[in-house]
Amino acid sequence: MSSERWNELADIKEELAARDWFPGTSGNLSIKVSSDPLTFLVTASGKDKRKRTDEDFLLVNELGLAVEETHLKPSAETLLHTEIYQNTDAGCSLHIHTLDNNLISDLYGDQGFITFKGQELIKAFGIWDEGGEITLPIIKNYAEIPKLAKELANQITPHIKGVLIRNHGITVWGRTGFEAKKHLEAFEFLCSFHLRQLQYKHLIKGGIGNGNVTFS
Amino acid sequence: MSSERWNELADIKEELAARDWFPGTSGNLSIKVSSDPLTFLVTASGKDKRKRTDEDFLLVNELGLAVEETHLKPSAETLLHTEIYQNTDAGCSLHIHTLDNNLISDLYGDQGFITFKGQELIKAFGIWDEGGEITLPIIKNYAEIPKLAKELANQITPHIKGVLIRNHGITVWGRTGFEAKKHLEAFEFLCSFHLRQLQYKHLIKGGIGNGNVTFS
Amino acid sequence: MSSERWNELADIKEELAARDWFPGTSGNLSIKVSSDPLTFLVTASGKDKRKRTDEDFLLVNELGLAVEETHLKPSAETLLHTEIYQNTDAGCSLHIHTLDNNLISDLYGDQGFITFKGQELIKAFGIWDEGGEITLPIIKNYAEIPKLAKELANQITPHIKGVLIRNHGITVWGRTGFEAKKHLEAFEFLCSFHLRQLQYKHLIKGGIGNGNVTFS
Amino acid sequence: MSSERWNELADIKEELAARDWFPGTSGNLSIKVSSDPLTFLVTASGKDKRKRTDEDFLLVNELGLAVEETHLKPSAETLLHTEIYQNTDAGCSLHIHTLDNNLISDLYGDQGFITFKGQELIKAFGIWDEGGEITLPIIKNYAEIPKLAKELANQITPHIKGVLIRNHGITVWGRTGFEAKKHLEAFEFLCSFHLRQLQYKHLIKGGIGNGNVTFS
Repeated sequence: MSSERWNELADIKEELAARDWFPGTSGNLSIKVSSDPLTFLVTASGKDKRKRTDEDFLLVNELGLAVEETHLKPSAETLLHTEIYQNTDAGCSLHIHTLDNNLISDLYGDQGFITFKGQELIKAFGIWDEGGEITLPIIKNYAEIPKLAKELANQITPHIKGVLIRNHGITVWGRTGFEAKKHLEAFEFLCSFHLRQLQYKHLIKGGIGNGNVTFS
Repeated sequence: MSSERWNELADIKEELAARDWFPGTSGNLSIKVSSDPLTFLVTASGKDKRKRTDEDFLLVNELGLAVEETHLKPSAETLLHTEIYQNTDAGCSLHIHTLDNNLISDLYGDQGFITFKGQELIKAFGIWDEGGEITLPIIKNYAEIPKLAKELANQITPHIKGVLIRNHGITVWGRTGFEAKKHLEAFEFLCSFHLRQLQYKHLIKGGIGNGNVTFS
Repeated sequence: MSSERWNELADIKEELAARDWFPGTSGNLSIKVSSDPLTFLVTASGKDKRKRTDEDFLLVNELGLAVEETHLKPSAETLLHTEIYQNTDAGCSLHIHTLDNNLISDLYGDQGFITFKGQELIKAFGIWDEGGEITLPIIKNYAEIPKLAKELANQITPHIKGVLIRNHGITVWGRTGFEAKKHLEAFEFLCSFHLRQLQYKHLIKGGIGNGNVTFS
Repeated sequence: MSSERWNELADIKEELAARDWFPGTSGNLSIKVSSDPLTFLVTASGKDKRKRTDEDFLLVNELGLAVEETHLKPSAETLLHTEIYQNTDAGCSLHIHTLDNNLISDLYGDQGFITFKGQELIKAFGIWDEGGEITLPIIKNYAEIPKLAKELANQITPHIKGVLIRNHGITVWGRTGFEAKKHLEAFEFLCSFHLRQLQYKHLIKGGIGNGNVTFS
């Protein structure tokens, strides 16, 4: 049954809510319950994510439709989660808005990606090389969700574990809830750290994140 | 009776206090109890908003006067809440000071408004268009409360759900406590995000929030 | 007896500790127990201020010496508290270090004072005029505590309710614990807000805090 | 036995986790149990540091190997802790990543050290002189842990109580858990404060942290 998955997702929601990572009821979360056929628990639409209730999630299928009769509506962005499960090894998918992931998505939106390198936190993605790097895609934010879901599907790189949506937060996944949260925290750190580096850019020689940054 | 409303408002107060959104005992909150005649619960003056007591709120009428005999004094700014209830569909009204809403109110105070656009969070106000925008008025901060209340009444745009008072925080409303809180969090995010964009302005081509920001 | 005062001070300590306002065991707090002769509870030296124990405070006299036999040592800066009680109407005195009060103390240290104006939060000090202002003195940080205490005594302006010590935090007082905390939060907000204004200074015409700031 | 040490370390882990100082499961902690032969409790690899369980730590020897049979793996960076215990008077060692310690390590990485001076918080390290200073070494971040551990051993200055690893956080120690935490908080404050000073550098005359900073 899905009660263990339910509690796992409820714990993650509680932790992210405590960090204020769901401003204005934004954000949505899901966790896979079965693979064949695909079913997953997803946040119900329009709830206060700081509260823990038995109406926080509902079970949906690969079309993003409720599997059981319910008065609850799945999150408007449920199709994004469907694409994640159909195109990766994800067991859990998290979508949140923060000031910093949003700003990175905007600053590098035209370029279509952001590359992080030379940071220890990159090891959170299983990249252990000295000077390893990771490139996170940034997609356009279409108001129409099926169009946005299709764009997301096109840009997913399974081993990257995340996609930025321009001015619309980040979507991150992992094989488990624990792993998804680890990836989310690591991307947040990398986004925030990059912005901090940009603030001190005028004090730095030789480029940001190139491994021989110099203070003059 | 008003005990359900009382608890709803007490929960909101507790959550906003945990974010330190009432510095120096500033800020005040209210929730409507009846429409005809208008009565609402409003924060008592001079209390520590981090504590939850049965003297946190008192019931007042459309003149901002206590409906029942009490030693409590309504917040000095109760008349602002009266204007909100008389000029909008509000069921709850929240007034708080943060560094970021205050700074936006100051930077754009002469202009008299601030426009946010191109942000997903704008959907919190029921604006679903791609590239939707919202313009928040900024009014002068008169020390005399009846004068300030009148100025507020003149500047209320019911569907905007908020007004900035220059160097004196933001006033936000919604049909319910939940909706008021959603609007408040969304405006805070938009104010903070705009300030973050200004910090990186020198790295941006083509203007802030115009939908084609470029990193060079 | 002093048990009510003890609990009042312990509550304040807990709240300030939750904000991380005692980095590296810095900071010290006191609350007056009797006026004639002067006795007050003061934080014991070298304790973890995040824990609540019955060894957090000890009762001292006007010389800063323990009134009862104890193995506890009063805070090394107890003499600063003595000066506050002897030169003002204080019933409680709080000394903390934050990044922002420290930075203000450093940026304006040579000038010897910082003036805040045009901010609603100034009303926390009982200044209700439109465009009211408050000037906070900044004193030198002498390593020798008796010398620092004397310097503090010379710079106390009773109605200002606070003194910055250069690169050594802020000391704030009030007639009660509640009032001292209110003053502390208001000064913190004013320090932080001033620093935020300086960050956006290049976008502002006509000077900071002069009531006609303009965004261009 | 080690149950008292276990609880001491678990309390520290809980407090640092609440500050989000273990992003993406990064960071590791240890506390000494015996000196001869050396044994210490160290964080098990790959755990969620926000949860408190009886599998959070395991006992290891001077080679960083488990002393008792267990399915747990010691932190991949256990050898760093071994070097701390063998080269200093440490009873507890803490390694964490924050935006600010990371940025300092990067900005001053080529220089190989950062000097903090003129700050009251320096007293947390037992340096009581007026204008006292402390110089924190910054070492290269080798992906190979034995190589990194050797580099750390070469750079340890016992009375400095900490080492920055470039783009890989800070390692701090103290004779007890309480002291290690005190040193960690003090270094974090000094790193963050230095960065804040750099942001306002253009407003400062005569250099940062030289004791005669001037606002012009």
